[in-house]
Amino acid sequence: MHFADDLIARVRALGHPLCVGLDPHLARIPPLFRRGSMAPGDPQTADAVEAFLGAVVDRLEGRVAVVKPQIAFFEQLGWRGLAALERIVARCQERGLLVLLDAKRGDIGSTAQGYADAYLSEGAPLKVDALTLNAYLGLDTLEPFAATGAGLFVLVRTSNPGAGDLQDLKTPEGPIYLRMARNLRPLSDRLVGKTGWSNLGVVVGATWPEQAIAVREALPQALFLVPGFGAQGGSAAGAVRGFVPGPVGLEGGVVNSSRGVLFPAGAATDDAAAWGKAIDGALNESIDLLGQAVAR
Amino acid sequence: MHFADDLIARVRALGHPLCVGLDPHLARIPPLFRRGSMAPGDPQTADAVEAFLGAVVDRLEGRVAVVKPQIAFFEQLGWRGLAALERIVARCQERGLLVLLDAKRGDIGSTAQGYADAYLSEGAPLKVDALTLNAYLGLDTLEPFAATGAGLFVLVRTSNPGAGDLQDLKTPEGPIYLRMARNLRPLSDRLVGKTGWSNLGVVVGATWPEQAIAVREALPQALFLVPGFGAQGGSAAGAVRGFVPGPVGLEGGVVNSSRGVLFPAGAATDDAAAWGKAIDGALNESIDLLGQAVAR
Repeated sequence: MHFADDLIARVRALGHPLCVGLDPHLARIPPLFRRGSMAPGDPQTADAVEAFLGAVVDRLEGRVAVVKPQIAFFEQLGWRGLAALERIVARCQERGLLVLLDAKRGDIGSTAQGYADAYLSEGAPLKVDALTLNAYLGLDTLEPFAATGAGLFVLVRTSNPGAGDLQDLKTPEGPIYLRMARNLRPLSDRLVGKTGWSNLGVVVGATWPEQAIAVREALPQALFLVPGFGAQGGSAAGAVRGFVPGPVGLEGGVVNSSRGVLFPAGAATDDAAAWGKAIDGALNESIDLLGQAVAR
Repeated sequence: MHFADDLIARVRALGHPLCVGLDPHLARIPPLFRRGSMAPGDPQTADAVEAFLGAVVDRLEGRVAVVKPQIAFFEQLGWRGLAALERIVARCQERGLLVLLDAKRGDIGSTAQGYADAYLSEGAPLKVDALTLNAYLGLDTLEPFAATGAGLFVLVRTSNPGAGDLQDLKTPEGPIYLRMARNLRPLSDRLVGKTGWSNLGVVVGATWPEQAIAVREALPQALFLVPGFGAQGGSAAGAVRGFVPGPVGLEGGVVNSSRGVLFPAGAATDDAAAWGKAIDGALNESIDLLGQAVAR
């Protein structure tokens, strides 16, 4: 199965491009799931994270196309965190959710192959459907990942305050983030599927919609992973500015919300029913906002 | 203890800047240490990696200042690989070796904090002395790492064939890699220790010595991590082109060799004595070459 074709078919069927970010901030995990000291080095902390995200994932089945675990929050728990992530990914897959691992890896030659073998190759211990990548080291570093047939999302223009330090530096042919986007065009073209969308996608922050338009022009067939919706301040309309008309609405990527769905008002409780209600409410709100933004 | 001060004191005492890269390429691990199928998903593979690198580390005690495990080779083994890496790092520390983890992490805000907590903060499950970082996302992404007081090595100009795709793009004020180096100057200045060297270091490939000189000019107090010596084709003289005169010779960073020390001719054996002799020979050769290159 071609990742981009699969993802876009699911997004069309659901009518919204929401991706739920699985970022288990330890301090925010609700009392319902907390165990032990919740310190990163406490073995029980990984169990708490697993219980919390498992309960979240159970509520996402049939509602969203894809989830995005942020691997840093698992790495901070040591090997137990990675073992918990393996089980959470398995649970997502049992629930029919695509998994886009946010790892922002980038390295050369045999090391890039190591990362591809860790997360994308057949037989990988923690096999996911797609991975975020950093291409500062050059286009050759993307090849081992491209060879796996999985989905790739390369950082182009991010949503943090310092994003412009490097990404906005001007060259005679445009800013660096656009040069990065244009550099990716041949690989994007190579990985296009039947829907016209490519397995080579890009990360473009929701806080800079005008830049999304420029990146879309440079990469007409690349799916966008748009972080920064909700908690980071981006609007739904802004988040889909790089999208284009498709058969059932605007399409061309997914929009991530992490904290907005995982830690809404009312979810800091030890009451299971109240917690479920808070999560469902936040999920419905994000789905509605993004569904309206892509509706024609 | 200030990382850069500690590292440079050890390098001065040893008389050479060799850093040994711990990159356990599965296909190259000698028969002496191989177990089971050696497939990434086989639980015995992590045991083989641990046995192999443990034996290497035992031979490095008192000979080198620092080792550089490449985390991708452990991640490809899943959580068992990370558990093995925790034990290998502990063994390095027992042997008095500094550990520079090559992870090339880079992410925003709370995610960057997660990576810092994973590898550098007090209580980190896999605490090391220094970490490689990718700053494509901006200078703000370095702050959580800088706050730990550990050593940081930010990618500036790498040694792979495609390194120039982004790093060499020209701006009116110089190529991107130099803009990156100049961006880092204030942070480098903030983290200077008693020896005059900063905890903010940079990665500068050995295959491009003239670029090392330009980066040194931009960052006079940053330690260089120079990959690409030996197997990747860089000469010892080229590797230290960014170094400057110090009290006992040229200094200003460390030069990494991975394959040249780990997998020399004669080491593909199941004879423990022959293997040890091959490793010691390769180690001595690298030490001699680099020792001569920095001698005045």
